[in-house]
Amino acid sequence: VRKVALVAGGLAKWGVRKATWKELVQEAGKALFDDAPDLDRREVDALFVGAAQPERFAFQAHAAPMVAEQLGLSPRTLMRTEMACASGQMAIKAAAMHIAAGLSDIALVVGVEKMNAAPLAEGQTSMTCVLDREWDGVHGGSAPPFFAMVAQRRMRDCGTTREQMAAVSVKNHRFSSTNPYAHFQKLFTLEKVLSSPVVAPPLTLLDCSGITDGAGAVLLTTAEMAGRFTDRPAHLWAYAQAVQGNNVANLGDITQWPPCAMAAREAYRLAGIGPDDVDLAELHDCFTISEIIEYEAFGFCPKGEGGRFVEEGQSDVGGKVAVNTRGGLLGTGHPLGATGLGQAIEVLWQFQSRVPAARQVADPEVAVSHNLSGAANAHAVTVYGRDPR
Amino acid sequence: VRKVALVAGGLAKWGVRKATWKELVQEAGKALFDDAPDLDRREVDALFVGAAQPERFAFQAHAAPMVAEQLGLSPRTLMRTEMACASGQMAIKAAAMHIAAGLSDIALVVGVEKMNAAPLAEGQTSMTCVLDREWDGVHGGSAPPFFAMVAQRRMRDCGTTREQMAAVSVKNHRFSSTNPYAHFQKLFTLEKVLSSPVVAPPLTLLDCSGITDGAGAVLLTTAEMAGRFTDRPAHLWAYAQAVQGNNVANLGDITQWPPCAMAAREAYRLAGIGPDDVDLAELHDCFTISEIIEYEAFGFCPKGEGGRFVEEGQSDVGGKVAVNTRGGLLGTGHPLGATGLGQAIEVLWQFQSRVPAARQVADPEVAVSHNLSGAANAHAVTVYGRDPR
Repeated sequence: VRKVALVAGGLAKWGVRKATWKELVQEAGKALFDDAPDLDRREVDALFVGAAQPERFAFQAHAAPMVAEQLGLSPRTLMRTEMACASGQMAIKAAAMHIAAGLSDIALVVGVEKMNAAPLAEGQTSMTCVLDREWDGVHGGSAPPFFAMVAQRRMRDCGTTREQMAAVSVKNHRFSSTNPYAHFQKLFTLEKVLSSPVVAPPLTLLDCSGITDGAGAVLLTTAEMAGRFTDRPAHLWAYAQAVQGNNVANLGDITQWPPCAMAAREAYRLAGIGPDDVDLAELHDCFTISEIIEYEAFGFCPKGEGGRFVEEGQSDVGGKVAVNTRGGLLGTGHPLGATGLGQAIEVLWQFQSRVPAARQVADPEVAVSHNLSGAANAHAVTVYGRDPR
Repeated sequence: VRKVALVAGGLAKWGVRKATWKELVQEAGKALFDDAPDLDRREVDALFVGAAQPERFAFQAHAAPMVAEQLGLSPRTLMRTEMACASGQMAIKAAAMHIAAGLSDIALVVGVEKMNAAPLAEGQTSMTCVLDREWDGVHGGSAPPFFAMVAQRRMRDCGTTREQMAAVSVKNHRFSSTNPYAHFQKLFTLEKVLSSPVVAPPLTLLDCSGITDGAGAVLLTTAEMAGRFTDRPAHLWAYAQAVQGNNVANLGDITQWPPCAMAAREAYRLAGIGPDDVDLAELHDCFTISEIIEYEAFGFCPKGEGGRFVEEGQSDVGGKVAVNTRGGLLGTGHPLGATGLGQAIEVLWQFQSRVPAARQVADPEVAVSHNLSGAANAHAVTVYGRDPR
């Protein structure tokens, strides 16, 4: 089995864009080709596209051949992967497995979502079909009410405070203000987060990630061939997922998300590391409360102490582990299929010391990338190392 | 890299079903578990779901965790694959790569599509989003008009006749009349096919595959472990895809489909075989004209002679190569994501001599499974062998 490395990345500008679905792909693809000037496009023998709901959001199915045509590729393997908000990370995983198994030498991965094309009402309706339509969707279940319920229960059971949640938003918006690809590039105070319009109590607008158009692209190859493209790749060390039911009612513990801890533990085990080894974590902060729970699930702090962890600056650059230095979903927005790509590119650029000083982690060696999907029933983790393994 | 084998399969009854999307999954899953009585569900460490447009047809996204919950699985890898009509074959391919690379030992693959849930008009609209909405979809491009155009051009350029197309339908409906899982179990004469209502000239209703609800499931494991489940598995020998643009205008030759021949050649090369070695071919007969073109692209007969090939019975059991013995898409229907699973299960059951005598190929050793997607721009082929390789 061959070792896999991520060697180049490119992003479109994320935000509410006039660009179409195809134009977002073109923009990310061009940025990737610029980051891999030695790549001959004919060498790309596999293409994986992470996209959650192009059929609904952009009325465009059959995403992989569409992307191949936009980027001038004729791959010998191509497919789209879908796992709602983890669709992008799944595309990276599937690409890595094809390389590991020898069916591909150079794979291109695109993540894309055009979320502001359909009328808002149709877009919101589409989000509800991520949940089981007969059990949860039918009750109006979608992301904000679910995560609001999580936050309320956390406040009651664990003493998590509104100020602690808001601290996540302040941190991640501070990071995204250094990120020219981010949807939001504005600093917010704790007071501003707390007093922004309520979306679903207790969550305010600034507790929620944005409805964002975006795309990202990365190039994967074998660890052996990586040197052709960069002298500092990100090596893929481990992949893990865990799932606990799909209905909201089947998630074992709404305040702790057991499958998140299961996926993190499995990722650590496969990579041969522990939480103390992680320098950089891209955690799925779809809402502020999510990041707090994830600190605990990843073992960065004891259960129930995630709120204090962020308040004390332990998830900031210079703290115990730098979390969401690109700005996370809160700061860069959450174009579903593109999010996993944005995370992977941040890991690569951190390893390459290419990000602005305000968010650069000093000499990072190990990073994790995490996405959840649905009502936090499913979690996916990829572990990256600066060195081969 | 580990060798992969297909060891068990199960089907739901295909047709216009009252069953919901979830119930179709349950039905196929139960049939699979019945076919692998020694399987402990906790051993299933990966789940791949092939589905083309559940978001539009069944208002259900996030397909993989939904299926996991329905089947009582807690896999450590799960995702959905999409490649329009080739979605099911992609799920098998992705599963095989995860096993080959060592990330999974026992993978379950489900293909499913509930196509008769949405109002017919919405269903038809959804099919148009498989094509590029800005170039082809906007002109009303969808499957029947595209394949009718292909048929017209074939008649003019290659002398293919309506009777030859109809012969494909007669053969495949004859086969599906032996298949209790098939949508259509009725024999049709050549005259009946020719005189059935015109859908898009020259194609009649019986030249077109059905709008079908269906699901199928297979179990994959390593060639080494296969013996635990069956003494006669189907060994996965090779995987190939080819793509030529995505717009209708970018398909090099509308009467020959160059990417189909490219995928077939690559599959043969990787498997170390030639067209004469193929005993059994599951070809994507979405329309009668498709199967005729595919005979030629797979090298079963010279270019332009596909029509004569079927008329002479060369694609029948006992002919040069038995094509679509389960009844193909024309006879069993075409529940998009499930079709690739139906094909794989026919290969397995043929190798196991489990199908009715009327369609059993004598001692088959090599089989190919083929799907196209979009406007025949993209093609996928898997080669199966009775023996390990």
